[in-house]
Amino acid sequence: MTFSDQSSDEFSAFALRLADAARGQTLSRFRKGAAIFNKAGPWFDPVTDADREAERVQRDMIAKVYPTHGVVGEEFGVTNPDAEICWVLDPVDGTRAFVCGVPSWTTLIALEHQKTPMLGLIDQPYVDERWLSAGGRTTYMRAGETSACSTSGVTELEKARISTTDPRPIAYFNDKEAEAFAEVSKASRVARFSMDAYAYGLLAIGEIDLVIEAGLQHHDYAALSPVVTGAGGVMTNWSGEAVGSDERGETVAAATPELLQAALKILSGS
Amino acid sequence: MTFSDQSSDEFSAFALRLADAARGQTLSRFRKGAAIFNKAGPWFDPVTDADREAERVQRDMIAKVYPTHGVVGEEFGVTNPDAEICWVLDPVDGTRAFVCGVPSWTTLIALEHQKTPMLGLIDQPYVDERWLSAGGRTTYMRAGETSACSTSGVTELEKARISTTDPRPIAYFNDKEAEAFAEVSKASRVARFSMDAYAYGLLAIGEIDLVIEAGLQHHDYAALSPVVTGAGGVMTNWSGEAVGSDERGETVAAATPELLQAALKILSGS
Repeated sequence: MTFSDQSSDEFSAFALRLADAARGQTLSRFRKGAAIFNKAGPWFDPVTDADREAERVQRDMIAKVYPTHGVVGEEFGVTNPDAEICWVLDPVDGTRAFVCGVPSWTTLIALEHQKTPMLGLIDQPYVDERWLSAGGRTTYMRAGETSACSTSGVTELEKARISTTDPRPIAYFNDKEAEAFAEVSKASRVARFSMDAYAYGLLAIGEIDLVIEAGLQHHDYAALSPVVTGAGGVMTNWSGEAVGSDERGETVAAATPELLQAALKILSGS
Repeated sequence: MTFSDQSSDEFSAFALRLADAARGQTLSRFRKGAAIFNKAGPWFDPVTDADREAERVQRDMIAKVYPTHGVVGEEFGVTNPDAEICWVLDPVDGTRAFVCGVPSWTTLIALEHQKTPMLGLIDQPYVDERWLSAGGRTTYMRAGETSACSTSGVTELEKARISTTDPRPIAYFNDKEAEAFAEVSKASRVARFSMDAYAYGLLAIGEIDLVIEAGLQHHDYAALSPVVTGAGGVMTNWSGEAVGSDERGETVAAATPELLQAALKILSGS
């Protein structure tokens, strides 16, 4: 099977069904005292019933409709590792937001063809916002209305609205990364924190201009890159290479190539 | 006029009308490339048409219905400064969130009787969430549904979900305050940032356990204290005194008195 327009439409429709199915498991548990489990390690790394049950439901749907496809999920590992076409699932990105009642957590769904991302979906169920990128174009959906996404035209750091999930060197950033982010932040107009993948959605609709992160894993960034590029944005690691080509999971997403270069100039030294 | 049950009901109904009127001015400008003005000073302090026009509409309504009442607003100063009953308005709290497209900005409305807060309202129009505190009880409203608010029962820092708008010593915190916050944060379970007044709403519904801030002004905190206490929470400054009694605008809001004491033990040394 190739990624013809027909299959792109088919997979888009299926991705929307996967997102709907996840909503059934996540929304019913949001702000309802959801059971929280701490993953191993000294740093609080919560996982909830919402994560697990949503991924279970999505895996069942894929196994039924596309039994030969691969699946990579945050909670239950890899299925069909050698498959050409692979779904990458993160049912609750931003579990910290989820357990704090903040409606910025999202469901992430990506489809990769021979390791290349072809489709990306970001869904925020409580606010009812959804971003779908397919065929190279990103669409924003809310309350039955749909619009084409476009990043802002901001090219200079001093005008940029920037974001990272946690600026402190105690979570995702190491000390050097935190210093580099602080330098970019100092040169920019305003910074917002704690948004996880939701920030990439805001970048795709021209509201945030630059997102800088580290510590992202495959299931985190797989859906984000199509959403950003399908809205006219650019996304690399901190050295200007493809996302995922370093061991730190560093990402920079920018509204314009000029803004990306301005950020990389500072970040690549770290 | 005394604050009988009848006037409390009347003022509650009027506060809801003020919030509705603000929505007309704010929602129509949110994510629409709203004009942004920078207030004086080196730190980016944005004010938008949404702030100004919403406050203008609210002041007109108050002047018409309650011409003898006082009004304190962020954008247009004080009217009837000696009035017994005074409305305190902040049409867009969290302007940075507003200009970054993040739906955590809120409209704040408070009513004070002889300087004592009697009513507080927090409204997030895009997510359609509203908190109203009157007669000592806080109510949460969304999509036509209403429920009584209650803070969580968390008494220990190590289980607490905490929040501040910006943990860095470059915005609201000075160096000592930022260090003290970092110490509280280290002892707590998880921290979320960039939420402004919205965090106090999450505290009132038991999702956040502790909010710590500095640099708050009268129009920022006037609505928050009734919302917090009307849900069973407690709110003081960093020395355990009434909010507003220090020059730094320091606030601590906690789900329980025990959690407040645990936070104050660290913060009061700073």
